[in-house]
Amino acid sequence: MAAKGRLFLIPNVISEATEDVVIPIGVKTVLKDLSYFLAEDIRTARRYLSSLKIYPAIEALQFEVLNKDTSLQDLSQLMQPIMEGHDIGVLSESGCPGIADPGALAIEYAHQQNIRVVPLVGPSSILLALIASGLNGQQFAFHGYLPIDAKEAQQKIRELERESKAKNQTQIFIETPYRNNSVFDHFLKSLHTDTRLTIALDLTGKNEVVQTRSINQWKKIKFNWAKSPAVFLFLA
Amino acid sequence: MAAKGRLFLIPNVISEATEDVVIPIGVKTVLKDLSYFLAEDIRTARRYLSSLKIYPAIEALQFEVLNKDTSLQDLSQLMQPIMEGHDIGVLSESGCPGIADPGALAIEYAHQQNIRVVPLVGPSSILLALIASGLNGQQFAFHGYLPIDAKEAQQKIRELERESKAKNQTQIFIETPYRNNSVFDHFLKSLHTDTRLTIALDLTGKNEVVQTRSINQWKKIKFNWAKSPAVFLFLA
Repeated sequence: MAAKGRLFLIPNVISEATEDVVIPIGVKTVLKDLSYFLAEDIRTARRYLSSLKIYPAIEALQFEVLNKDTSLQDLSQLMQPIMEGHDIGVLSESGCPGIADPGALAIEYAHQQNIRVVPLVGPSSILLALIASGLNGQQFAFHGYLPIDAKEAQQKIRELERESKAKNQTQIFIETPYRNNSVFDHFLKSLHTDTRLTIALDLTGKNEVVQTRSINQWKKIKFNWAKSPAVFLFLA
Repeated sequence: MAAKGRLFLIPNVISEATEDVVIPIGVKTVLKDLSYFLAEDIRTARRYLSSLKIYPAIEALQFEVLNKDTSLQDLSQLMQPIMEGHDIGVLSESGCPGIADPGALAIEYAHQQNIRVVPLVGPSSILLALIASGLNGQQFAFHGYLPIDAKEAQQKIRELERESKAKNQTQIFIETPYRNNSVFDHFLKSLHTDTRLTIALDLTGKNEVVQTRSINQWKKIKFNWAKSPAVFLFLA
């Protein structure tokens, strides 16, 4: 029986056309030897790999879809090349696979089957926002998206502000551009005046902004954040 | 008055002699134009920058110490080049500045002074461990080191296991090699049998290991993790 292949976690860019700047050589070296890929959207995955200019013929690569509807049974099928000794790369649509991303399904499966999982270094908006915020990097928690309902969102923010104060814990959230302004409003309304709030926009991109201010200071500033994916962080 | 300089967050390797593999070109491009650096240990910082082979003369670069004892007054002195229009790079001893690292002091100061903070992409053992764990990447919290006292450590683990269960939150810890085995023992003793525990060792290095098992499964395995810096993660 052939030795099992490995599952490589392939980072993607988080801002368009930055692959030459943010993707380390080590990722390209691994990619050169891969022929099997799992991706949420095959078209964009193929476009990303093309942008790296490492394959003579992108048509020779094999892509399979891995998304939130992928069942355990599908997975055992998708991971078949690994059982036959081939390595597989999991691609994310943005940043690192496995964070807010269906890649986690394949990774979980790999551990169950004693398949080696190899994470590769690349951009993560959550991590970049955290380090650039100047907030506490010794204790932090990521909560994904806030509830859509305004009242629920504000309640959640207040609850997490209490927890932030008690634990000295930085609280982290992501949001999609069209909701940035309303989410930012929720923070201004719900947090105490001396709590520090960070917004990180278009990280690694041309319009990158990372700003940390107290709520009091933010209230004096006009803003319109509706253009880029954002990471929000606060520390009470 | 000259425009203010920027504060660049420069990633370091997390495993020796991996700079050619994990440090993106974009970091080297930024470094080429920097002459001022803040670092915890100037000797190792200089050695790291030498390893990147981008400076004709490393002696021409200016290093200042930034550590946990750096006062606000010191900081205003250290950041003077930025006020005069020069960019400064903050270096970490390992991975990204600002996470479990005194770099955060300079970053906080920069935000107060309206200085632009620019995070650069590089390796982070916490992030790599999280994505490779297959545990929940939608909700997670980083708690730093566990208490040294065994009883306190076990109490803390139990408390965070309850929280993990309630919130479906991955709990993340780091440890220094000589304490890995005792910390792992604490996890085995304190967590429920079906809680999944991950150990990630020597990430990006030659002896990289990332393994996720239930406590039940771990109890059947002999281990000795005392050789490399580790990240521990669990999900109840």
